[in-house]
Amino acid sequence: MTSIVNRQSSIENVSEQVQRVAAEAKQAARQLAKASSDQKNSALRTMAQELLAQRAGILKANADDVHAAQRGGSSEAFIDRLRLSDQRLEEMEQSIQAVAGLPDPVGAVLGSWRRPNGLEIRKVRVPLGVVGIIYESRPNVTSDCASLCLKSGNAVVLRGGTESFRSNQAIAAALQAALRATALPEAAVSLIPTADRAGIEAMLSLNQFIDVIIPRGGEPLIRLVTERSTIPVIKHAKGVCHVYVDRAAELPMARRIVLNAKCQRPATCNAMETLLIHEETAPRFLPDIVEQLQAARVEVRGCERTRELAPSVKPATEEDWSTEYLDLILSVKVVRSLEEAVTHISRYGSAHSDAIVTQDEAAAERFVRDVDSAAVYVNASTRFTDGFQFGLGAEIGISTDRLHARGPMGLEELTTYKYVVYGTGQLRQ
Amino acid sequence: MTSIVNRQSSIENVSEQVQRVAAEAKQAARQLAKASSDQKNSALRTMAQELLAQRAGILKANADDVHAAQRGGSSEAFIDRLRLSDQRLEEMEQSIQAVAGLPDPVGAVLGSWRRPNGLEIRKVRVPLGVVGIIYESRPNVTSDCASLCLKSGNAVVLRGGTESFRSNQAIAAALQAALRATALPEAAVSLIPTADRAGIEAMLSLNQFIDVIIPRGGEPLIRLVTERSTIPVIKHAKGVCHVYVDRAAELPMARRIVLNAKCQRPATCNAMETLLIHEETAPRFLPDIVEQLQAARVEVRGCERTRELAPSVKPATEEDWSTEYLDLILSVKVVRSLEEAVTHISRYGSAHSDAIVTQDEAAAERFVRDVDSAAVYVNASTRFTDGFQFGLGAEIGISTDRLHARGPMGLEELTTYKYVVYGTGQLRQ
Repeated sequence: MTSIVNRQSSIENVSEQVQRVAAEAKQAARQLAKASSDQKNSALRTMAQELLAQRAGILKANADDVHAAQRGGSSEAFIDRLRLSDQRLEEMEQSIQAVAGLPDPVGAVLGSWRRPNGLEIRKVRVPLGVVGIIYESRPNVTSDCASLCLKSGNAVVLRGGTESFRSNQAIAAALQAALRATALPEAAVSLIPTADRAGIEAMLSLNQFIDVIIPRGGEPLIRLVTERSTIPVIKHAKGVCHVYVDRAAELPMARRIVLNAKCQRPATCNAMETLLIHEETAPRFLPDIVEQLQAARVEVRGCERTRELAPSVKPATEEDWSTEYLDLILSVKVVRSLEEAVTHISRYGSAHSDAIVTQDEAAAERFVRDVDSAAVYVNASTRFTDGFQFGLGAEIGISTDRLHARGPMGLEELTTYKYVVYGTGQLRQ
Repeated sequence: MTSIVNRQSSIENVSEQVQRVAAEAKQAARQLAKASSDQKNSALRTMAQELLAQRAGILKANADDVHAAQRGGSSEAFIDRLRLSDQRLEEMEQSIQAVAGLPDPVGAVLGSWRRPNGLEIRKVRVPLGVVGIIYESRPNVTSDCASLCLKSGNAVVLRGGTESFRSNQAIAAALQAALRATALPEAAVSLIPTADRAGIEAMLSLNQFIDVIIPRGGEPLIRLVTERSTIPVIKHAKGVCHVYVDRAAELPMARRIVLNAKCQRPATCNAMETLLIHEETAPRFLPDIVEQLQAARVEVRGCERTRELAPSVKPATEEDWSTEYLDLILSVKVVRSLEEAVTHISRYGSAHSDAIVTQDEAAAERFVRDVDSAAVYVNASTRFTDGFQFGLGAEIGISTDRLHARGPMGLEELTTYKYVVYGTGQLRQ
C-alpha cells in the first residue's frame, strides 16, 4: 500500500511541477511576443557568454552524465552524442551568436491587401507561443533549441533525454542566469524538472499552456506523443530515404551520390537506407557499387536479382525495406521501372528525402511529381535535407509531418500569423 | 451476454467500414495529387450539375431528416440550418461552380533559390492528402467541403451531424455519381457510412490514411477529437469575440459596430459576445447602447459599473465572460484602461476575432500588438472574419488553432509543400 501511495503522490508532484513550469512559460511567452529584435539579440549574446562563463560546471555535470551512461552500458555512438568538450561548448556558443545574427521573423508582413469595402487586411507573423521540445540525449540541442525559440519570440519548455539530465540542467541554469541580467523573463527557457518519464506525460496534457510539441526521436517516443498529446504535434520521426538510379543515370555520378548518401554520416535521418536500381542499369552498376560499399564497411542486403548480380550480398527481408538503420547497412532492390521505384518509395519510405539519379529530364519530372516526400532530389545526395544546407540559417530539426512545417524547420517555421484589419467603421451587410 | 457481443461486433463492423473508406480515400488522394486543373474544374462542374439533377432525391432525403429532427424536438434555429430548399440547392450548385473558377493552389512555387554549391531549391505547393471533416448538421457544408478539397487536390472523408445523415448521403451520392463520369476517382469524396458516434472514434485512429482532421462544432466534439485523435487536428472551435470601445472612440461609429457585431447574425462564431467599454466613455455611451441593444431584443448582462449606468441590465456572472452565446445575449464590462481590456480578452476570449474602436492611433497599435487573436480589428465589425470577406475566394471554416492555418481557411490552407532540389551531382562535405 505505502509504495502505491508514494508512487501516486510522486506522480502528482511531477505533474504539479511540470504544470508550474508550463504556466510560467506561458506568462513569459506573452512578454517575449512583444520583445524587440534588439532585446532578443542582446539576450542571446548574454546567453552565449554565460554558457562559456559556466563552462566548468557544465563540463562537470556532463562528466557525471557520461559516467552514468557508461556504467549503464550505453554504446560508444550514444556516449559520443552525449559528451561535451571545450570545443563542443564553443560550437554551442557560436551557434547562439549565429542565431543572434539571423533576421527576426516576428512582425514580418506576409501579405497585405485592400478589400472593395475599404478594409485593409495585413497578415503578420507572430510567435507560436510556448514550444515544448522532447529530444535525444544530446546536450547541444538544449542551447540550440533555446536560442531558436527565443529569437522567434517563443518560450520553450525543454525535455532532453534522461541520460543528459545533469548536463541539460547545467546548460539551462547558465541560460537562465543570463536571462536574469536582461529585460526578458527567465522563464523564456525552462527545463522539465525531472528525468522521470512521467514528466513527458504531464507535458502532453497541458494544452492550456503549451502551443506545440516537437518530439525528436525513435518510434516509441513518437508513438507515445502521438497517442497521448492533446497539444498539436510536429513530429521529427524517422527517415527511410531512397536513392533511385534510373535507366538513364550517369553512372560515375550515381556512384558518388550513393556513397555520399550512405557513408558520409550514416547515423542521420537524411542518410540513404535503400538503394533502388533500374534493371537495365543493374548489370553495369550493381556489382561495382556493392564492392565499393563493402569496401567502405557497409553491410549490403539485397533482393534476389541483386544477389544474382552480387553474390556476396545477404538476402533482404520484408522488414528491411521499411527499416531506418542509422548505421552502415543498406538494402538494395532492382526495379523494372521508374513507376516501380515510386511505388516502392510510397509503400516503404517515410516521405523524408528521396533522390533520383538520371540524365532523362522527363524521368526526373515524373519522379519529382510522383514522389511525395518532404525533399525530392534530382542528381544530388539526400544528405542535404538540413536547415543550414537549405539556407534557412539554422534548424530546430526536420519535420516528417505534413502540417505547418515540412522538412527542415527554421525560425520562420517556429511562427504563425495573425490577421490585422484596419477599417473606418465598416459593417457586415 | 448476447447484447454485449452484438454491440462489440457492431463496433468492429463500423471500424472496418470506416477503415475501408479511409483506405480508398488515401488511394484516391494519390491520383488527385497528379490531376490537372482542367480535370479538377471539369469534375467540379459535373458535380454541380449532378447536384441539381438529383434535386428531387436530395430534397426527399432532407425532408426525412427534418421530420425526424422535428419529432426529436430540435430547435427552430437547428431545423433552419438543416433544411434544404430549391434555393439552397441552387446556392450549393453555384458555390461549386465558383470553386471551379478559383485559381488552383497546387503546383505554385512558393519560393526558389540557388545555393552556393549550385543546388537549386524550389518550395512547391502540394495537397495535404486526405482531409477528414467532422461538422454540424448543415447539409450545404457537405458540398462546400467536397468542392474545396477536390479543387486543392485532396480526398475528403466527411462526417456530418447525425441529424443530417440522409441528406448527406443523398448529396454525396450525387457528387460520386458525377465523379464516376470523370477521370477522377469516385473515392475523392466519401462519407463515413454510419450516423453512429463510433464512426467518429474510428476515424480518429486512422493516421495511416487520414492526414488532417478538421472538427467544426461545440466543445464536447472538440474535446473528444483533441483527446482521441492520433491525426493532426485543425480545430474550428468557439468564438468568444470582443469589441472594446476605447476612451478615444468616435461614438456613432462605435454604436454601429457594436450593433452590427452583435445583431447582424448572432449565431456565427465571429459575432461579438462581450462588449468592453473604457470607463471614461461609459457614461456617454453605455446607457444609450444598452437601450438600442435591448430595442433589438438583445439580453444584456453587465458588470456592477454597467448596472449603475444602465439599471435595466442583468448581473453578469463569472461564467458569462467566457461564454459563446451564439444568440441575442451580450455581456458588458466597464474597464479602467486599454490594458485591462487586453488582459480581459487574453483571459476570457478564445483568440478568434477582437476589435478596438478608437481614433487614437497609438491605442490602436497597442491593441493590435498585444491582442493575440486570429483576427484583430481596428474600427470594423468582428463579423468580417470569413474567407469570402477576406478575399480568399471561399473557406472551409475558421481555424481557432495556431498551427498551419489560423483564421479563415481557404484553398491555400488546404495544402502543404515539398522541397524539390535540382543538382548536378552535389555531395555533402
